[in-house]
Order: sequence, then C-alpha cells, then structure tokens
Amino acid sequence: MALSTTSRNAESLSLIDRLFQAVDAKASPIMVGLDPLLDRLPPFLTQGRKGGREGAAEALLEFNLGILEAVADLVPAVKLQMACYELFGPAGLAAFEATCTQARQMGLIVIDDSKRGDIGSTAQLYALGHIGRAPLLQGKSPEALADFVTVNPYLGSDGTDPFYRVALAEDRGVFLLVRTSNPSSGQYQTAVVDGMPLYERIALDLQAQAAQHTGGYGFAPLGAVVGATWPDEAARLRQLMPNVPFLVPGYGAQGGTGDDVMPSFNDQGYGALINSSRGILFAWDRLNMAPEDYGLAARRATLEMREDLLAAMGRASKRPKGW
Amino acid sequence: MALSTTSRNAESLSLIDRLFQAVDAKASPIMVGLDPLLDRLPPFLTQGRKGGREGAAEALLEFNLGILEAVADLVPAVKLQMACYELFGPAGLAAFEATCTQARQMGLIVIDDSKRGDIGSTAQLYALGHIGRAPLLQGKSPEALADFVTVNPYLGSDGTDPFYRVALAEDRGVFLLVRTSNPSSGQYQTAVVDGMPLYERIALDLQAQAAQHTGGYGFAPLGAVVGATWPDEAARLRQLMPNVPFLVPGYGAQGGTGDDVMPSFNDQGYGALINSSRGILFAWDRLNMAPEDYGLAARRATLEMREDLLAAMGRASKRPKGW
Repeated sequence: MALSTTSRNAESLSLIDRLFQAVDAKASPIMVGLDPLLDRLPPFLTQGRKGGREGAAEALLEFNLGILEAVADLVPAVKLQMACYELFGPAGLAAFEATCTQARQMGLIVIDDSKRGDIGSTAQLYALGHIGRAPLLQGKSPEALADFVTVNPYLGSDGTDPFYRVALAEDRGVFLLVRTSNPSSGQYQTAVVDGMPLYERIALDLQAQAAQHTGGYGFAPLGAVVGATWPDEAARLRQLMPNVPFLVPGYGAQGGTGDDVMPSFNDQGYGALINSSRGILFAWDRLNMAPEDYGLAARRATLEMREDLLAAMGRASKRPKGW
Repeated sequence: MALSTTSRNAESLSLIDRLFQAVDAKASPIMVGLDPLLDRLPPFLTQGRKGGREGAAEALLEFNLGILEAVADLVPAVKLQMACYELFGPAGLAAFEATCTQARQMGLIVIDDSKRGDIGSTAQLYALGHIGRAPLLQGKSPEALADFVTVNPYLGSDGTDPFYRVALAEDRGVFLLVRTSNPSSGQYQTAVVDGMPLYERIALDLQAQAAQHTGGYGFAPLGAVVGATWPDEAARLRQLMPNVPFLVPGYGAQGGTGDDVMPSFNDQGYGALINSSRGILFAWDRLNMAPEDYGLAARRATLEMREDLLAAMGRASKRPKGW
C-alpha cells in the first residue's frame, strides 16, 4: 500500500505514517525489544568494567549499541523495557536515554515500554517526561527521547487522556495495555463491564479516540498492546479497533508463533508490530555462536523472524504487495 | 494499642510494626506527599539556579529537604510521587534518591509511589530496583532507598507476586492500587468478576496474601491504595481486608475530609495512612505566608491536618488510647 503523501519527505510525515512507511520500506513489521539483562550479556562486555550501578549501565549501553548496529536496517522500530534500565538508578536511566538517542539517529522509531499510569495531574507529568517536553526553570527540556510510551489503563480515562493529549500535540504516540501476553492476564482483564470483557471495553474506548486521528495508512498514533499468546482475542480486538496499531509482545520466548500473530494484522497486512526481545538479543547463546558475534547472531535471528512472519503472512493472505 | 514486642528496639522490629509504632509514637496517621512541582516552588529556591534538568532537580531537592526538616517529627512516613522526579530524567531520579536517603536518616518510612506493573520477569526487575537490591557485575547494589512501592494490578497475579516476594524477603512492603481516588477510577475498576466489582476481587486476592504475614498490629506489609474520595467503598474494603494497611490519597486538595477517611481505619483506629501532598507542600501560598516560611507553613498545615483527623477519630470512636 502506498501512502497518498509519498511525495512529501519523511520528516514532514506524521509519526504514525513514518512508522508504517518504514514497515513498508523494510518489509518488516518487527520491533526489536532492547531488554538487556546483565547476567546474560556476552562476557567480554562485562569483564574489567568498573563496579556499581555505573559499570552495569555502561555494559547495557555498549551491548545495545552493538544490537542497534546489527539490526537497524532490518526493522522499523525498537522497544526499550524501562525496568531493565531503572534497575540501575540514574546511571541506568542515562543508558536508556543514550540508547534512545542512538536509535533515533539511525532512523528508528523508539517505543518507551514503561507502562506508566496515574491520576490525571500526575499522568500529565509522566506524559511530558516520556513523550513531551518538561517545563524547566528557563524554557523547556529538549524533545523527549521516545516516540511512543506504553500506558496502563487501570486508572480510567482521566489517567489515559493526558497521554493522548500530549501525544497528539507533540506528534508522538501511545500504546495502551489492552490484553497483555502473560499467563495471568485474564485474571482481571476479563472482568465484565457493559456486557463485555474489560479489555474489550478499554479497546472500544481507545478506538473512539483513534478514529479521530488516523493517518494515511488508516491508523492513529494511539495504539494497543495485544499479546501474541491470545490469538482469538486478538482477532476480535482487530475487528473492534480498525484504526488502532497493535504492539504485539509474546512472540518467540513467550511462546507465540508467526501464525499466532496474524490476527493482529488487518486484511491488507498492516497494523501490527511484532516484538521480540530475548529471542534476538541473546541469539548468540541459543545459536551456539561466539559471544563476540552477538550482533551477527541478533541479525540472523531477526532475519529468521522476518522469514517466519512473511511466510505466515503468505499463508494468511496478508502479505502486502511488493514485500 | 501497645505492641507485644515493645521491649525490642526499633531496628529489630519488622517494617510494618515499625510503621505503626511510629504512627502511635507520633499519634499521627499522616503521610506527607513529596510531590514537588517546579512552578509552585517558593521563588527564592529557583532564582539564580543553573538551567536544564539539573537545575530543576536541584530546586526540587532543596525544597524537599526544607519540608522534611519541618515535618519529620510530626509524621511517620513520606510518599514520593515518582512522576515529579522522572520528569527531569537522571538528574530528577538522583533528587528522588537523595530525598529518600535524607528521609530515612530522619527515621521516616519512605513510600515510592511509582505505580509499577508488568509481566512476571519484568515485575521482578522493578521490585528489585524499587524495594530490593539490583544484581551488579560484582555483588549487589546497596539496599533500596524506599520501604514501600505502589503497584498496579492490571497484569494479574504474575505481575504482582514478584513484588510480594521481594517485599517479604527484604522486609519491605507494597501498596497495591485497589480503588484509586480520581474521578474516573470507577470506569474500569468496577467491572464485575466473580459477582463482585473488580476492585473487591483484587482486594480479596490481596487479603489472602496479607493474612499470612501479619505483624504485631495485625497488619501485613502488603497494603492497598484506597482513595479518600470513596468512603462507602472504603468501609466495605476495610471489612474485606482486615490485615491490609491502607494508603489513602485524596484528602484535602482532592476533596476528601477527615470524616471521609474514617472508614479506612479499623475499630481500634489503626490501619490507614492518610496522604496529603499539595495541601502541605504549598501551604505557604494558600495561607498567604512568605515563601521563605514554606517549611513553617507546611508544619502548620500538617498540625491542622492532624487536629482534623484526631477530631474525626474522636467522632467516629476510633481514636486510639493515649493519642
């Protein structure tokens, strides 16, 4: 599918159109999850480093830069799991920011997976900090380092609306947790409201917002997290949210297959970004490759994932033309 | 009520018993919310400071230290709203940590209000970072700076259990979001599961954990956030969760009164910590006092709040003996 606005350069496109244009250009609906774990890094990256949280954070950053170099031309986006960085305090947060900066310089869309959520006035602060600009004593902080932030809906609309407002004002985006990939996600997410499961109610409320802000591919920058581990629910959610892009965790290490994620794409083969973290980051270990080749292994794993997804798209008759 | 273990010194008591012993000793079930907002600080704290996020973070920290000095002898605990700090990146997080350190040195219990929540393996990282110790390249990080962390339940038990496990292993605690204080909190929190509102289901699941880990006051270090703005629901929740301490936001600026928060206390007058943030931090402005007297104003506001609560406790026949 070609954008009607392809004559404009990439910078003049909205975020959501730049995202799907990159998906198209790379024929790759893949998001690499930069969720580095200190005890799983290649040993040569950790040896001889200074101690404390600073040494740990430096190792994460160097690892990330190697992954970015290896996969940047293969994927449109990366997702950073904030918990991996926050674990190391201010130094960890600095490594998070440096990774975001490098990813954006390489033309990647950056998703800040921090699942924030709070009451209205506080949600506004989180939104400004993660996808906006912080008011300072003089002026404002430079623009935020992430393009999208993930948000938890439990507080209701006065907790989510500030994120939507900041995203729309700053040409950024949100992925709202709708149906998460973990085993116990149904425990509370399937409570019933208005005669439907809670996650469907949240989906309809999100779609109502998204319908008003769609770009050239038919999607808004207001997305949903929909786990790969629940394909039937994903099919229903795709129907309920035609204008909402899906961030799909749970592929690979969590058990989701290429076929499992097909329901998250629309009939034209768009609308889903499939995340893989551990399956790509630590592929050197899984593939019995040398630790020094962790980037090469990540590249190989990304290409394998792409093949798997394109084959599944073919089987589902959802492979976009030209891919 | 006297602890059966009062002959032991404070350090040998568990966190939850130290908390309620401090409530008793100060006759004060108050938690001061350290939620500083840059544009509401006394002007003398911001003038002449360097720019950028560093200057903002330094102003927040100096403000906090003044508040701590003014109220530390009046309250058992302080709560830091993470969004206020995260807004300023690594420098903001450093100000958060410095505030926590100072508060603990003054003998205060520290609540890290960051409402984290994620799938199991990630929740474990958040728990270690916020109330545990981070594994480093050599050894572990020093002990966490907060005593309690607030947690979002939307992911279900495999998202909450890692927080409980870390809390119990490290003698720390959790406050789980059950019924928040904001206007739209009922939108999703009252969905029905097992014939009851979702927030009651979450409450029962929490109580089942708490019942196994109670201290001398009958409470576990596994608490609930229950908004002051919903007194009827709070009364029911107090019945459902006899062993769960309540963190009660919404007093003051959000509209909750002393009488409104009484249902969160048990019949002996324990089990609730009432938070006030803006009503205390920015009292100098509200009371038309000089900006330089912001600490004095905060102290006055805290004492007024204490009077209000003790009077309401008297009316509700919930004032502990000796207070």
